[in-house]
Parts: sequence; structure tokens; C-alpha cells
Amino acid sequence: MDAYTPTREDHFTFGLWTVGWQAVDPFGGATRAPLDPVESVHRLAELGAYGVTFHDDDLLATESDRDKAIAVFKQALSDTGLVVPMATTNLFSDAVFKDGGLTSNDRDIRRHALRKIRRNVDLAAELGAKTYVVWGGREGAESDGAKDMRAALDRYKEGLDLLAAYVTEKGYGIRFALEPKPNEPRGDIMLPTIGHALAFIGQLERPELFGVNPEVGHEQMAGLNFVHGIAQALWQGKLFHIDLNGQHGPKYDQDLIFGHGDLTSAFFLVDLLENGGYEGPRHFDYKPLRTEDSDDVWVSAAANMRTYLILKEKAKAYRADPDVAEALAASRVPELSVPTLAPGETLDDLLADDFDEPTAAKRGYHFSRLNQLAIEHITGVRG
Amino acid sequence: MDAYTPTREDHFTFGLWTVGWQAVDPFGGATRAPLDPVESVHRLAELGAYGVTFHDDDLLATESDRDKAIAVFKQALSDTGLVVPMATTNLFSDAVFKDGGLTSNDRDIRRHALRKIRRNVDLAAELGAKTYVVWGGREGAESDGAKDMRAALDRYKEGLDLLAAYVTEKGYGIRFALEPKPNEPRGDIMLPTIGHALAFIGQLERPELFGVNPEVGHEQMAGLNFVHGIAQALWQGKLFHIDLNGQHGPKYDQDLIFGHGDLTSAFFLVDLLENGGYEGPRHFDYKPLRTEDSDDVWVSAAANMRTYLILKEKAKAYRADPDVAEALAASRVPELSVPTLAPGETLDDLLADDFDEPTAAKRGYHFSRLNQLAIEHITGVRG
Amino acid sequence: MDAYTPTREDHFTFGLWTVGWQAVDPFGGATRAPLDPVESVHRLAELGAYGVTFHDDDLLATESDRDKAIAVFKQALSDTGLVVPMATTNLFSDAVFKDGGLTSNDRDIRRHALRKIRRNVDLAAELGAKTYVVWGGREGAESDGAKDMRAALDRYKEGLDLLAAYVTEKGYGIRFALEPKPNEPRGDIMLPTIGHALAFIGQLERPELFGVNPEVGHEQMAGLNFVHGIAQALWQGKLFHIDLNGQHGPKYDQDLIFGHGDLTSAFFLVDLLENGGYEGPRHFDYKPLRTEDSDDVWVSAAANMRTYLILKEKAKAYRADPDVAEALAASRVPELSVPTLAPGETLDDLLADDFDEPTAAKRGYHFSRLNQLAIEHITGVRG
Amino acid sequence: MDAYTPTREDHFTFGLWTVGWQAVDPFGGATRAPLDPVESVHRLAELGAYGVTFHDDDLLATESDRDKAIAVFKQALSDTGLVVPMATTNLFSDAVFKDGGLTSNDRDIRRHALRKIRRNVDLAAELGAKTYVVWGGREGAESDGAKDMRAALDRYKEGLDLLAAYVTEKGYGIRFALEPKPNEPRGDIMLPTIGHALAFIGQLERPELFGVNPEVGHEQMAGLNFVHGIAQALWQGKLFHIDLNGQHGPKYDQDLIFGHGDLTSAFFLVDLLENGGYEGPRHFDYKPLRTEDSDDVWVSAAANMRTYLILKEKAKAYRADPDVAEALAASRVPELSVPTLAPGETLDDLLADDFDEPTAAKRGYHFSRLNQLAIEHITGVRG
Repeated sequence: MDAYTPTREDHFTFGLWTVGWQAVDPFGGATRAPLDPVESVHRLAELGAYGVTFHDDDLLATESDRDKAIAVFKQALSDTGLVVPMATTNLFSDAVFKDGGLTSNDRDIRRHALRKIRRNVDLAAELGAKTYVVWGGREGAESDGAKDMRAALDRYKEGLDLLAAYVTEKGYGIRFALEPKPNEPRGDIMLPTIGHALAFIGQLERPELFGVNPEVGHEQMAGLNFVHGIAQALWQGKLFHIDLNGQHGPKYDQDLIFGHGDLTSAFFLVDLLENGGYEGPRHFDYKPLRTEDSDDVWVSAAANMRTYLILKEKAKAYRADPDVAEALAASRVPELSVPTLAPGETLDDLLADDFDEPTAAKRGYHFSRLNQLAIEHITGVRG
Repeated sequence: MDAYTPTREDHFTFGLWTVGWQAVDPFGGATRAPLDPVESVHRLAELGAYGVTFHDDDLLATESDRDKAIAVFKQALSDTGLVVPMATTNLFSDAVFKDGGLTSNDRDIRRHALRKIRRNVDLAAELGAKTYVVWGGREGAESDGAKDMRAALDRYKEGLDLLAAYVTEKGYGIRFALEPKPNEPRGDIMLPTIGHALAFIGQLERPELFGVNPEVGHEQMAGLNFVHGIAQALWQGKLFHIDLNGQHGPKYDQDLIFGHGDLTSAFFLVDLLENGGYEGPRHFDYKPLRTEDSDDVWVSAAANMRTYLILKEKAKAYRADPDVAEALAASRVPELSVPTLAPGETLDDLLADDFDEPTAAKRGYHFSRLNQLAIEHITGVRG
Repeated sequence: MDAYTPTREDHFTFGLWTVGWQAVDPFGGATRAPLDPVESVHRLAELGAYGVTFHDDDLLATESDRDKAIAVFKQALSDTGLVVPMATTNLFSDAVFKDGGLTSNDRDIRRHALRKIRRNVDLAAELGAKTYVVWGGREGAESDGAKDMRAALDRYKEGLDLLAAYVTEKGYGIRFALEPKPNEPRGDIMLPTIGHALAFIGQLERPELFGVNPEVGHEQMAGLNFVHGIAQALWQGKLFHIDLNGQHGPKYDQDLIFGHGDLTSAFFLVDLLENGGYEGPRHFDYKPLRTEDSDDVWVSAAANMRTYLILKEKAKAYRADPDVAEALAASRVPELSVPTLAPGETLDDLLADDFDEPTAAKRGYHFSRLNQLAIEHITGVRG
Repeated sequence: MDAYTPTREDHFTFGLWTVGWQAVDPFGGATRAPLDPVESVHRLAELGAYGVTFHDDDLLATESDRDKAIAVFKQALSDTGLVVPMATTNLFSDAVFKDGGLTSNDRDIRRHALRKIRRNVDLAAELGAKTYVVWGGREGAESDGAKDMRAALDRYKEGLDLLAAYVTEKGYGIRFALEPKPNEPRGDIMLPTIGHALAFIGQLERPELFGVNPEVGHEQMAGLNFVHGIAQALWQGKLFHIDLNGQHGPKYDQDLIFGHGDLTSAFFLVDLLENGGYEGPRHFDYKPLRTEDSDDVWVSAAANMRTYLILKEKAKAYRADPDVAEALAASRVPELSVPTLAPGETLDDLLADDFDEPTAAKRGYHFSRLNQLAIEHITGVRG
């Protein structure tokens, strides 16, 4: 056991569907046997995880009787002490959802989706989950004529407003976290980025009950800076949950182990999460590679947590390094926290500034040095 | 003169910086001489444009005396009847803005940026502009340590709140339109997509004064569906202005002629703008290719308008085609406008549905046929 | 029946796996029943197709006895007159190929892959196929340490050299067409683009037996210009086969209907294929959307051929338009076919040129006008 | 001075245009003064560089008399001991090359381009350069009708064949390295990837005189794996030179400091260069950020070399770590170097294998563990 061995206090959680993924992909069948959720709970507990999360269908991986599946799952939680901070609904696997759930063109199916979510929200509440993730993976289209996007936003809002009223009425204390994704499995998915989801939330009846559950790879599939997206979500008080994994830019959704994609971005992400006021679980939504066997699954699960802890230690050292502090100051990074106008100043007062533009234009920002310090902390040759 | 010859009623506008671009790019110098804004006004008027738009610096292209430049520009407007529906500030060309304007790490420069915007807002008001575009092209970073993104959002908000108070106090009747862009010239730009900008607007003191000015190519640089983005902006009542051009996916900002990028997306965009309640100008923010000479500039300007009108006619024919209406119905597109719950219904009532999942799952959506009809309208083999 | 109704002379072919795709994707199960290859042959024949192509496993979709499956398939070909110009091997679906076939790290599996290909090459020859496609979808890696890429190229070459020797020895008259793809299902696939495949072919023992089978969407997943890639393949005499479909830029492999992605690129592609000396089949490798039912499958199959014929007619009109000819000349496009040196000239002779650089630099290329003419042909408002 | 201080033996080289870049970009003017090439030579020598490289025009940055510029440059080389292992021609900045040099539609300009290259090849030879880089940044198009790509390939070949004959005749001992790039400044550039360039080389008259000069960011702009591309170039014996820098995926060409883009890829790249038989210079083709001042330029130059040396040390430790060796073996990585057929074996002999497919399919490859070891070496928590 070393400094990178996880404990409950680290609040690491895993979706049952991550370790349980049988590795079916668009070009090939399963390479691993179904995994009993009970085994997952025990194995993750042994590895130092804090909790597990699930879709309604995940519990039925090896036991088709729902009541029985729930009972043994609760027993496993009780046996291990693992908690369920988040749950969600699978509105994407069944053929019935091929055009979406809450925004399917087929009204009967929209009603069915609402029933399915409601049933699993009840279970989530029963298991103590405080966050309910909504990933509308099939809410979208492959051609622009196939979906009236404004009507679709109306229906999405209608469905979420109903669900928010429901959890309020029931007193569940549950909040919803919308998970953005730009595409796959649909050609274009609604609410494709953190920004679109945050904007949409502002149009809901109970915006206070809604936040986001951003996923590293989803933003990077659009070439967007994940750290910037998380900063905006935090700034708006809307980072309710987070999905950690890895991705190599715009291509299919890779769901790599955390840190096995863009390592430098992962470092700055951990720095932001640890110092930016986020207090939720560190949730891994990755997929063990299709090449891996059943034992490798647990090796990969552990790697997520270990990499997080490695980067956390580095972020601490980076913040504590006086050279970094000095470089930040030289780059005027802290100066950005100073309001542009002094207390009491007005726009008119700005006209009195004695501003020497040529001199100001010449000043360098020394960002190269600052970033090199970060690279040297990440690589461990400092600190 | 044919059906595709533009008139003032089409409300086509151009930035002075578009036709006036001298074609300096990261790897080469100018290929065209500076263009007198007065000439641009006259040439665009002859081509059938409705108005022009400008950055403060654009007026100084061939005349360095600002007052004189303004006077002759106003005379040209008066001579031609062209209007100025929109104006904006150049906060990106000068070296002083190399780390941004409103969010530069350097506080003196932030103050300078506010002064520069204020001066040009006054001019915009004088010229009758009702929309003021804010494109923060240099508000961003190349490395995550170089910019405290939450502080940057604070400063962005501070600046915009001040400007909103200013136009309110002056009674200018001006509204601001934020223009999102994911990157270039910065590695990552703040408010990278329509969604991020809409979300940010919700945090401002006077959100009603802020909307978006999305640009075709900017969203497509992130691989996002532009029509979907515009639909969300319209749905939120925030499409204050639009920048039309063309782009071939994630790469440098191409600013091609409208329709010279993704033609099918351009068709659905025109369909949405014409039928979706957008009443602002159709503003072209393109760049004549660097290979083109001074005469080609006007050929390319005309091509933007002509392509728009071609697609507008096609959108009309598409909507009028009974086969399309029938196909839309078969795809249940209109059914999405029917609320999921009937008036008076509750979530509980859904439990009474007699839903036959296997049958519902089997129903096809016939989107292939619908999209093929669109392709046949675009290619003119129908309608 | 109109001008866009396909006939055998159009040489349209389809993979059995296209219409037969049951729509399993990474996030959901089948939405359509398995399709009997015999039915596919008959339906495609009725629609006007010229032939079908297959992976070894495709024949077993509804009949698990291989000999029986082959017999009924041959009968269907005989009944309909459809031919089999191309065949290929499935080295990606089975779990055994999870790290690839010819370049698996596991030598036993490499040997197994060779056996599988050999068996299906025998069948391909028996059915008269003259092209054998090799798509190494699983030849790749998700992390750079997992695969010694130079050793992998050695093994790829070893395998293909053996197969080339085999077909030569057997006198099958078969040539191989390598199909490039940048990623998916592997994080990075070997020979990711047309260029890499062409380069690799030059290293084989019998390069004359190898060409490429490029797919529209595969190059566009890397943001590359497909028409340019095809031009280089033709220029090198290596376009042995082609996979036509549609894609919307860098994201998962969409396999849309031909023309339902980038329409303008599809127009120029058809123009090049029809006028560039390609004489092979026009092969569609698309997937009917997961939202579609069993009838929609045939609607979508027909749409591929119809769109091709629409664009073919337009390409003809574009080439015949005197305005286009004049514009091409003004853009000096034909001048590029004139050798830079006159017959007998040497580099030294160039020094005698009286070259007026400023004048040459000022000349415009008028590409805007030329491309606008293309847009107007595509949209049918000319010609 | 620590372990990461560069010396001449490290063979680090820089383009004069890198440190000398004045930071003009598509949206803004210069932020730094022109830099005297003589100063660059001295400063780079002090930092530990081995050599410098140049475009013909680079020498004229501060001295417009070509002869004088050459003389003082040679003196600086002599004073510092720096060498010039590579040179190249600027065929992209001047307006005359707006449609390309060797493939411009304008034949007079193609002849001018040949003259310009020839003159600088003479100078390159005089300065002892053994590699001549050809980056055809303007050889391309924005629309498919504007360039007959097959004719363009003919002209590219004609030009390069002439130059190869010229250096052969002169006995210069110079070889050419083609530098691929997918786009920017043209919408699509010819020979967009390492693969396309390698394939094209096979069509030249003297292929032995041509190799590639791949650039990290250029391949990553197409989402391609740079390490894989370099491996193929090495495998084909064609890695004549390399351009090291950093990039964040498909967007404009960033030219970041080496290691400031994808750090993990940079690690595996250094590992491959150090252990893969590459013996040429480690050439940095980066741009100091536009935010940086004149002093920052040298800080950023030094950062490139330092990061390389840090990663080189890590690669050595990774290779020496017995756990890594064991993990590589468990992942069967070395097994890929074993030929698939034993000496003397034939395809027929494969039929005798006793292959247990289900067992083989079940074996895991343990790539997660292997990659995690790499991550731990990069982050310095091992080794």
C-alpha cells in the first residue's frame, strides 16, 4: 500500500456498466462473460471504491427477476458499506428507444420513457441516491428533417419538468444531472455540450434541481477543452456530478481509463476538482478494453483510481511550489481575480487612465515558462 | 435578373472586413490592396445588399483620420440607402490584446478594452445599429494554467454588465450578441459554442439585452450541427443575429462562401431561418479566397446572396410538396409537437397506458425516405 | 421509371452485410430481424443492382450450415443473374480477433486468420470474384506500448505476401484491395488512410496484385478530402474497388446513404469516377439507419443508387456547360496539364524566363465563380 | 546544469523561422520585433543547440541584401560551431504562390518556383545541408473543381524529378524530405499525411533521394497517431528528418512547444526515435506563443529541448524496468516479432494446427496494465 492506494474518503465510484461491459462494439460481439452486480460491488469495495452507480437494466445482468436482483444488490451494499450516490435510466439499449425516449417522435414511446424513469427514480430514492443522471443518448437525429428540434426541446423540457415535480412531491431530495454528448449513437445528439445543457436548464421550471454530469471524453469528442467546460459548470454552481475517463480527440467514444487519454488535461482537471469546490463523487465512466479478460477488468478499475491519486498529489505539489507561485504572478494570473473597475468606479472614470498602449502591448505573459513548470510537475522532475 | 437576384427586402448584410480582407493568413502576406469602405458600400448596394456592418478599425482601412473616415462612410450610406444594423469592436488585431480584451490577465488592458468598446458603441448608436456583436476572439488560452477560467468568467460578466448598463443609461436601444467560437486564434476560446454563450447569458445582470450571433463555420469547427444550435437559440428567444458562411469540418476557420461548405446543412438552415421566426439580417461573414483578385471579391459577395436565394426557393418547394408532407407524417415528425401528457394528465395516469412494447419497437421511422426527398429537392430533381 | 432508375449497366453492388445489418451498435441491440442472403439477392436484383459482395460469415446469417448456405446463395445468384465481383473475410467480429488477425500479438491467432482468409478466397474464386478486399479493422491498438508497429507491419506484409503467392499459384486471377480506416473499432487502426495503404503496398512482394478499396466515410473521419484521395489512387493505378456511403466529418463511422453526407463532395466524386477511368463496380457500403424497419432497408438501398445517378447526370451537364468550360480556362485549370518544362527544356533554360513577379502575383484565379457554377449545377438551377 | 541540459551530442536543431516568428496570425499583427538570424544562431548555440535550418527568405529578416545576409550568417555559424543540416524554400508567403508553387495552375509560376528552389538548393549545398525539406503548403485547393488533382500530381512529380536530377548532377549529396500536412493555409493540401507522401515517393524517378519530414502537429490535425506514422516511415526507411512540436487535435496548426500537446504520445515518440534507428537531427518546428515577449522566445526554445531530454530519460527507465519487460511479455508484444510461419512452413501446413478457438478467444492481452506502467513512468512515480 502506497500513497496512491484509494480509500473510501477519496469518494471514488464506478458504474456497474463499466466493469460489467461485455465488450460488444459495432464490429464485434462480447469478449467477456456477464458480471454479477454483487461480485462487482464486492470487488470494487476491495479495491477501495466508495460507491457504485447503475442504470435500471444493469441490475438485471445475471438475474432477470427484478425484485430478487434488487434484494441481493442491497445486501451486497450492506455487506460492503458501499453507497449508491447516483442512479440513471437506460433509455438507449432497447429497440423501442431507437428514436429516443423523452423526445421520440412517437408519443407512446415518450410516455413509456417517463414510466421507466419514474420507476427507477423510486428505486434510486430507496437506495439513497441524491443525484439522478439523465443521458439522452438516443435523443437526436441523423438528418435535419427527421426531428423538429424546437419541438424536441419542448418535449425534453416537458418530461424533465414532470420528473422534477415528481421528486419534489415525493420529497426524494434528488437532483438531476444532465449528461451532454455531441454524437454517437445518434448522428447528432441534443444538448451536445456542457454549454448547451447549462443553457437548457435555465429554461426549466425548477432550474435549481438540475445541473450537469459532464464526461471527459464527450467534450473532447467535440475538440473542446474539458477543464474550461468544468470551470464554467462550477462557476454557474451546476457541477452536480462528473464522469471521468480518457479519450483521444474527435472519434468514437473511447471511454479509456482516466489519464490514458490527454494526461496534461487530466492533471489540470484534478487540480480544478480538488481546489474548485467540487464535493461530489469522483465517478469513473470508462470501459475496460475489449482486448482484456475478466481479471484485467479489475486491474483497469484500479488504474483509474491510482492515476487520479497520482495527479492529485502532483496538483498539490504544483500549487505549493514557490517557483510556480512566482510564475503565476509573472503571468498575471492572480490579477485576473481583481475586478476591472475599482469599488465605486464607473465606465466614465476609465477615461482618466493614463494608458501607454505601446508599452502594454510589449509586455510578455511568460505562459511558456508557466506551462513548462506544469509539465515538469506532471513528469515528476520537480516537486 | 432572375429569381435569385437579391433586393433590399432580402435583408442581406456584409461586414466591411469581409470584402475588405486583404488575405493575410498565418503563412502569407496580402494578395489584395486595401479597399476603401466607401467603395464597399457602393459596390454592395449595387449587388442588392441591404446593409453593412463594421469593426471600429474597419473604417480606417484607407483613411487614418477617424472623423473623416466616419464622415465619408456616413455619406456613402446616405448615398446608397444602405443601413448599419450591427457593429462590433476589434479586440483582437492589436498586439495589446494578445491575451484578450475583457479577460486579459492585465487589468490595464481590460480597462482599455472597455474604453474601446464604449467609443464604438457610441458610434454604432449614432449610425442606428441595434445589435452590437461581441466576439471575444482573444479571450482564451493555450494552456490550462495560464488562465483562471472562473476568474475570467467573472471579468467577462463584469465587462458585459457594465456595457449593458451603459447602453441602458444612454437609451441606445442596442442589444448585444455574443459570438461563440471554439478556437483560433487562441488554443481554446471562452464561450466556445452557442450553448456555452447562452448559458453564460443567464448569469448576466441584464440577460434580456444579450443574445447570440452564431457563425456557421464556428460550430462546425467543433463538429457540431449548426441547424440544431440555431434551433436551440431560437427556442430560447436568443437568436439576435447570424453569421452565414461555409466550412469543411474541424480545421482552421475557413469563412467560405455560404453554401460552399456543407450544402445540405445550408438548405436546412435556410429552411429554419425562413420558417422559424428569425427576423434579423442575413449577415455574411465570409472571406474571399486568397487566390482571388479584386474583381473576384464582388463575384464572391454576390455568390453568397444568390446561394441563399436558391436554397430559400428550394425550402419553399420542399415545404409545399405533398410527398414531403406525407413523409413527415409517416416519420411522425409533427407528432413531436403534441405534448406527451394530455391536458390534465399526470405522471400517474401514464400507468394506465396499454403499451405494447414489442410492437412499438418494431415500427420504422422511414427517415431514409424523408432525407432522400430533401436531397432531391436540393438537387432540383423534384419540385 | 425515370432517368434515375438503375440498371445492370450501372454496375451497382451491395455488401450483404449492408442491407442485412441488424442495427446493433455500441449502445443498443438489434432493431431488425436477420435477413436471409437469398432474399437480399432477389430484392437487390429487383432494385436494379448488378451484384453482391460478402464476408465469409455473412452467408451464415440465417443458415448455419456453411455448405447449404453456399448452395442456396449460388442458386439465388443464378436465378437473378447477379454477380459477385468482390468478397472479403470477417476478421473482426469474433472475440478471437480482438487484437487483430494478421497482426495479432498472438501468433496462433495470426495463423488462424490466414486459414480463415484462405478458405474464403477459395470460395470467392469459385464464385468468380476478381477482387478480394482486406479490411483490417482490428489491426491496431489503443495505446502505443501495446503494439510494436514495425513488427506489426512485418507481419501484415508476411500475411499478404503469403496470400498473394497463394492466389498466384492457384491461378485465381484475384487481386487484393486494402481498405484503409483511421480508427474504430480500434483506437488507431494500421494503414489509416489511402496514402498509408498505397505506401505499404509498395513494400510487398507482388505490389501489382494489391490496390485499395477506399471508403468515403473512412477518409472523412480523418477530415481528409475523399476526392483528392481517390485522385491519388487513380493516379497510381491502384483504385481496384470503392466503397460509397456518407459521413458527417470526424466522429464514429456513420455509413450513411451515399450523398446523405457531404453532397458537394459526392458530386465531384461521381464526376471523377465517371471521367477518371475507374471501371470497377460502384459498391455501396452503407448501413440502413437503426431507426428503420425492414421495408425501409430497401428504400434506403434504392436511395444510394438513385443519388448516384442524379449526380452522374449533373456531372455530365457540368462538363458540357460552355460557361463551366470558360470558367475552367479562366481559372487555368487545363493549364496544369501542360508540363512545366517544354520538350527539351532544362532547369537551366528557366533562367532565361522574363518573369514579371508583381504582375503574376496580382492575377486572380476566379475559383469562387467556378465553384459557384458547380453549386448551381448540383442544385439544378443551371443545366 | 542538470541531466536535462542539452549538448551538441543531442543534435537539437531549430528553424530560424521558429524563434524569429513575429506572431502575425489570421486575426492579428506582429507582437515581436524582427530577429536578426545572427542573434538567433548565437542564442541557440548558448542554449545547447546543435544546428539551425532556414528558408531562403529567413536570412533576409533584418538584412535585405542577400549576399551580405549570407555572409554574416556563415560567420555566425563559424563563430558558434553550429551546423546547417537542413534547408528549405519558402513557396508560400509571397502572393505569387497563392495557388501553389510546383502545382500552381499558372505555368509561369511553376517555372518561377523551380528557379527559387534551385537557387536555395545551391546555397544549402554550400552550407553543408544534407537534407532539403519540401513543404508544399500552398499546393492544394479549397474546392474540388479548382484543381485537377491528377494533373497536379504529374506536375509535382515533374518538379521533384527535375530537382533530384539537378542535385545528382551537381553531386550535392542532398536528399529531399517531403513534409505532409492535411490543410492550412489551403482548404486541402496535397500529400496530406505521411502515408500519402510515402506513396507518392514510390512514383518518382529517383525514389531513393526522397523521404519524409513528418511534423507532430500535422498528423494530429487529422486525428492520426503520430507514433504509428513515424513507425511506418522508419519501416520503409524513409524518415529523413522530423519536425517536433505540440498540438491539441484537429484545429488550426498550433506549433506548440514539444510535449505541450499530447504528452503521452510525445513519450512514446521519443522512445521510438531513440530506439528505432533514427539518426537525424531532433528538429523543433514550433512557434513561441503570440503572448510571449522577446525573452520568452528563448525560454520556450529551451523548453523544447528540456522536455525531450526528460522524456528520453523516462523512455530509458521504462525499457529498463523489469516489470515493464514482464508486462510486455504478458501482452505478447515481443511475440509479434516472431514470423507467423516458421522457416520452411507453407500456408498448407497451417491446416495441421490444433487451434482451440474458444480458449484463444478468452485470453486477455493485459494492455491496461501495460499502459498504466507507461503512465507511471511518464509521471515519474516509478523508475
